[in-house]
Amino acid sequence: MIRARVPYFMRSRPYMAVTDALISRIRRPVRRGRRRMCVMFLENCWYVAAWSGEIGRALFERQICGESILLYRTAAGDPVALGNVCPHRFAPLSVGKLIGDEVQCGYHGFRFGTSGACVRSPLADGVIPAKMRVKRYAVVERYGMIWLWLGDPDVADESAIPNFACNDDPGFRRIEGLMEVGANYELISDNLLDLTHAEFVHEGILDSEALTKSKLETAQSGTTVWSNRWAHDGVAPPAWAAAFDDYADNVDHWAYMRWDPPGNLLLDVGVTPVGKTRGEGVWLYGCDLLTPKDATTTWYFWSFVRNYKVDDPAVDAMWRAAIEVAFVGQDKPILEQQQRMMGQRTLDDMGPVMASADVAATRARRIMKKLIAEKDAMPQPGSEAPLELLGRNVATRLPVQPVV
Amino acid sequence: MIRARVPYFMRSRPYMAVTDALISRIRRPVRRGRRRMCVMFLENCWYVAAWSGEIGRALFERQICGESILLYRTAAGDPVALGNVCPHRFAPLSVGKLIGDEVQCGYHGFRFGTSGACVRSPLADGVIPAKMRVKRYAVVERYGMIWLWLGDPDVADESAIPNFACNDDPGFRRIEGLMEVGANYELISDNLLDLTHAEFVHEGILDSEALTKSKLETAQSGTTVWSNRWAHDGVAPPAWAAAFDDYADNVDHWAYMRWDPPGNLLLDVGVTPVGKTRGEGVWLYGCDLLTPKDATTTWYFWSFVRNYKVDDPAVDAMWRAAIEVAFVGQDKPILEQQQRMMGQRTLDDMGPVMASADVAATRARRIMKKLIAEKDAMPQPGSEAPLELLGRNVATRLPVQPVV
Amino acid sequence: MIRARVPYFMRSRPYMAVTDALISRIRRPVRRGRRRMCVMFLENCWYVAAWSGEIGRALFERQICGESILLYRTAAGDPVALGNVCPHRFAPLSVGKLIGDEVQCGYHGFRFGTSGACVRSPLADGVIPAKMRVKRYAVVERYGMIWLWLGDPDVADESAIPNFACNDDPGFRRIEGLMEVGANYELISDNLLDLTHAEFVHEGILDSEALTKSKLETAQSGTTVWSNRWAHDGVAPPAWAAAFDDYADNVDHWAYMRWDPPGNLLLDVGVTPVGKTRGEGVWLYGCDLLTPKDATTTWYFWSFVRNYKVDDPAVDAMWRAAIEVAFVGQDKPILEQQQRMMGQRTLDDMGPVMASADVAATRARRIMKKLIAEKDAMPQPGSEAPLELLGRNVATRLPVQPVV
Ligand code: FES
Ligand code: FES
Ligand code: FES
Repeated sequence: MIRARVPYFMRSRPYMAVTDALISRIRRPVRRGRRRMCVMFLENCWYVAAWSGEIGRALFERQICGESILLYRTAAGDPVALGNVCPHRFAPLSVGKLIGDEVQCGYHGFRFGTSGACVRSPLADGVIPAKMRVKRYAVVERYGMIWLWLGDPDVADESAIPNFACNDDPGFRRIEGLMEVGANYELISDNLLDLTHAEFVHEGILDSEALTKSKLETAQSGTTVWSNRWAHDGVAPPAWAAAFDDYADNVDHWAYMRWDPPGNLLLDVGVTPVGKTRGEGVWLYGCDLLTPKDATTTWYFWSFVRNYKVDDPAVDAMWRAAIEVAFVGQDKPILEQQQRMMGQRTLDDMGPVMASADVAATRARRIMKKLIAEKDAMPQPGSEAPLELLGRNVATRLPVQPVV
Repeated sequence: MIRARVPYFMRSRPYMAVTDALISRIRRPVRRGRRRMCVMFLENCWYVAAWSGEIGRALFERQICGESILLYRTAAGDPVALGNVCPHRFAPLSVGKLIGDEVQCGYHGFRFGTSGACVRSPLADGVIPAKMRVKRYAVVERYGMIWLWLGDPDVADESAIPNFACNDDPGFRRIEGLMEVGANYELISDNLLDLTHAEFVHEGILDSEALTKSKLETAQSGTTVWSNRWAHDGVAPPAWAAAFDDYADNVDHWAYMRWDPPGNLLLDVGVTPVGKTRGEGVWLYGCDLLTPKDATTTWYFWSFVRNYKVDDPAVDAMWRAAIEVAFVGQDKPILEQQQRMMGQRTLDDMGPVMASADVAATRARRIMKKLIAEKDAMPQPGSEAPLELLGRNVATRLPVQPVV
Repeated sequence: MIRARVPYFMRSRPYMAVTDALISRIRRPVRRGRRRMCVMFLENCWYVAAWSGEIGRALFERQICGESILLYRTAAGDPVALGNVCPHRFAPLSVGKLIGDEVQCGYHGFRFGTSGACVRSPLADGVIPAKMRVKRYAVVERYGMIWLWLGDPDVADESAIPNFACNDDPGFRRIEGLMEVGANYELISDNLLDLTHAEFVHEGILDSEALTKSKLETAQSGTTVWSNRWAHDGVAPPAWAAAFDDYADNVDHWAYMRWDPPGNLLLDVGVTPVGKTRGEGVWLYGCDLLTPKDATTTWYFWSFVRNYKVDDPAVDAMWRAAIEVAFVGQDKPILEQQQRMMGQRTLDDMGPVMASADVAATRARRIMKKLIAEKDAMPQPGSEAPLELLGRNVATRLPVQPVV
């Protein structure tokens, strides 16, 4: 083991501190045999539909919350999202043609504009029936991603997009990816809001008994939930030791997870020498954007954003490899096995037994239930303070203090 | 481009002309979420079960309208169709043995005759229970195909088989095939009854803007529907130009489609120099026989029948290649994508927006609904005049006149 | 054909003789279209969960009657069966770790003991919620197999395990295997309780017209059913002729099948020269243990146990090859085809036509229905006399006399 050199970076300030709130046990529902899963998706909220780089001047189909959605860019580069089902005879518009900024159906040639309205009939009579239109989705390109509002585009509220400014901060280095996971998106939120799983799922790479044993602080502001842990004076997870120039002594290790509906999470995570400030350690942001494909499949957009060694491709490669092992090789299988055990049943159908580490996940699920049940409800992201405060060159000592 | 020579053939006379009838909009049904498809098949009608050459002295299973059917020929060569599910313990008879003209179940050896009745017990007691019989289907071999009456064989009416005499006219040359398509059969009827799709789906091979823009004439006689177009003075579709000895000038191009329930279609199609008679052009019959395998899969029997260059294998090859591109490479994918978008929902469930080109398809669907709803109803094919009149060496000028 | 030598072995005494009882026809239920299969499994009974050799110090998952079950052995070698679904968040325990005799969930690290109770929380608070436990199944290792009681372990009754003592008699030679069959387990019981199928399904290997034509004797004692046939003076089935040193003359051929709920069968089968005692022929036990994986899939545990040429690997190989052909190549396909024809319908849904050979299978199905319907009912195996009496070196003349 090489003795660790002191690292090169970074900053902090009081972040997403938390007061804990007791979450009472979810009542175990009476089970009456297996029944078909009935998953309702939240409509009035933002889903990540794609990484910016995925969408261009080709027609692109992505299924989101069971809906087939057509994505493309206008000649001016603006992203467009339309219902992908032609209202005439239901061919997918995505197998048609992009002509200028309009989409021509590949079956009988009706043509649709960016508003979703039919703008041209191929027939001699030229008649365009009034109902010949597809749904238009509000889209916003921000933080390197295309955000899509699933519900009524006229009530889409850009201010409800959670802050992932780290993602396109020019001083940071981002690596990103997309993984299709055969599990309901809330199972993945649960996973991320309870990082004690790392000790068992990510053995040999991200495991930390100190983190499992650390105090969990949960807080809510608006519809934003934080689930924060700091583990004082413990063995560094192997990938973090490697990232920290093969640091061999004990470290302070923190993991602050922010969740916004329906499943958009930001992780602030790192290690620093015991008792030192964050700025003397290494840390990064992990963005975990969970978009349901359908009730039991999820588009898992992830990015790792760091501001140390931003120009070192070896660090890119090290984190890519770690993600490959941890996400694809460990989280994905356990999530898919979990879904297999649940079959078409929801978590409530199954009647989970709760432990203290479930408090943040349970709160997030409760917020989702409330939003879905309440007509016209939509997410209200909480204070942006943490991200604003955590600019570069801010050094904060651990533990950070509650801000909520 | 080689300048077109004047061709060798053919004939005509007033054909399946049409009076148009306004078909009012199909009412959009109230949708209440996704539900399981509930497709009813018409029982009292003829389905093509197989090409004649497919059925011999081997036991052959084909699923038709969700029923597993056993097909074979007697020693005398007569086709037989029986229910394929053994009434004893439900093994498929098709995995048994043909012994003489009888079928022995491959599980416990009960033996069934061509009437469907059990004729032999393998057991010592020799007892044949009265209910030990399978359904017998009426079958007729005609036009190179085995036609099967799905309903009560005692009311099977041979005169209700639509006329496909072209198919086994010794003066014609036929190429034939079978394609399994993952789409409901009525979606394929829709496709064939609205040939404007050629411009978009069959680009580069059968596309014709002139055809899309041409007048559609629709007529009904009995339960037969015609959907006819002639396109005056337009660019020949590429495959037709090639077929017409690389004719490079504009042509008159016609496509007359005849539909009979449940999905048996005949296409009279061709090109001729502008203003000339059909006899001075090239044309052929396309037979499209659509037999449901189940609610979302179709056996698509097709033949192309021509009376020009009947002995030229290069022309066979040219049309086979065109079909490979057009049917397998273009129609099948768009139909299967369409079905994918619809999932388990019917067209009515989806609430299609209608355009003027849908008039014939809509009428055909309406006839199917009526036949299925009315007890004991069965198809009544309309006048056979067109096919009788269109013998060889009949030259007709376009457009042909209405005969209905 | 080599002339048969007189063989080396065996014994008998009056065995599982039978009085026949008339079983009235199962009433044909009214069918109202297809409906979802609703299969109820018997809970209070023993299922074979595994061959002893399958289970060791690794975590092993097997689905039984739709339940995912975890199997392993303690350090002392005792088999353990627990519910495989972690009560916390439903990860399968089988992807966790065996630590001593305890199982640690691979997701968040809760640990469970052999009683099913959680014995350790990984969290700092160390709290173990009262409901954090998985189901414990009663298991017994006997006859080379792990037997599992699906219902309440506190009422598990070891005396209800049918006698398969032949299976681990040191004087016998056993070959064994496991086959997954895509058919409901009762369809396989039906198959085994009506061996007339051999003439048709096992042509060229185990077929015997004499057996088909022989008298069937059916008896019941407790919940045990026997279905016995002896075929006097017939052609030996090919595999039996080969086993009997290529015996070329006619033989007496017997097949005595014992069935116990839910699907545990023992076959006493062999051939002997016409009119000779069983001890002068060759015979073996076939064990057929049918454990439902789910409604339409079955774990088929089989063994062939013989006491002739017990040290001859060529005889092992001959029977392995015969089983490969007969079970995998012939029974499995016909059973899966039968299930395909039935789809999600039960036998009753289908309304089978009964023949005289169905009497034993029908009785077994009736017993199963009664046991499932009656609260707290459990199997009562009948007299063990036959197996006790059929020790080695007992020679009995055919036919054996009824003992029930
Ligand atoms: S299906 Fe799109 S134009 Fe007809
Ligand atoms: S299943 Fe056909 S004879 Fe038994
Ligand atoms: S799922 Fe097993 S410990 Fe959480």
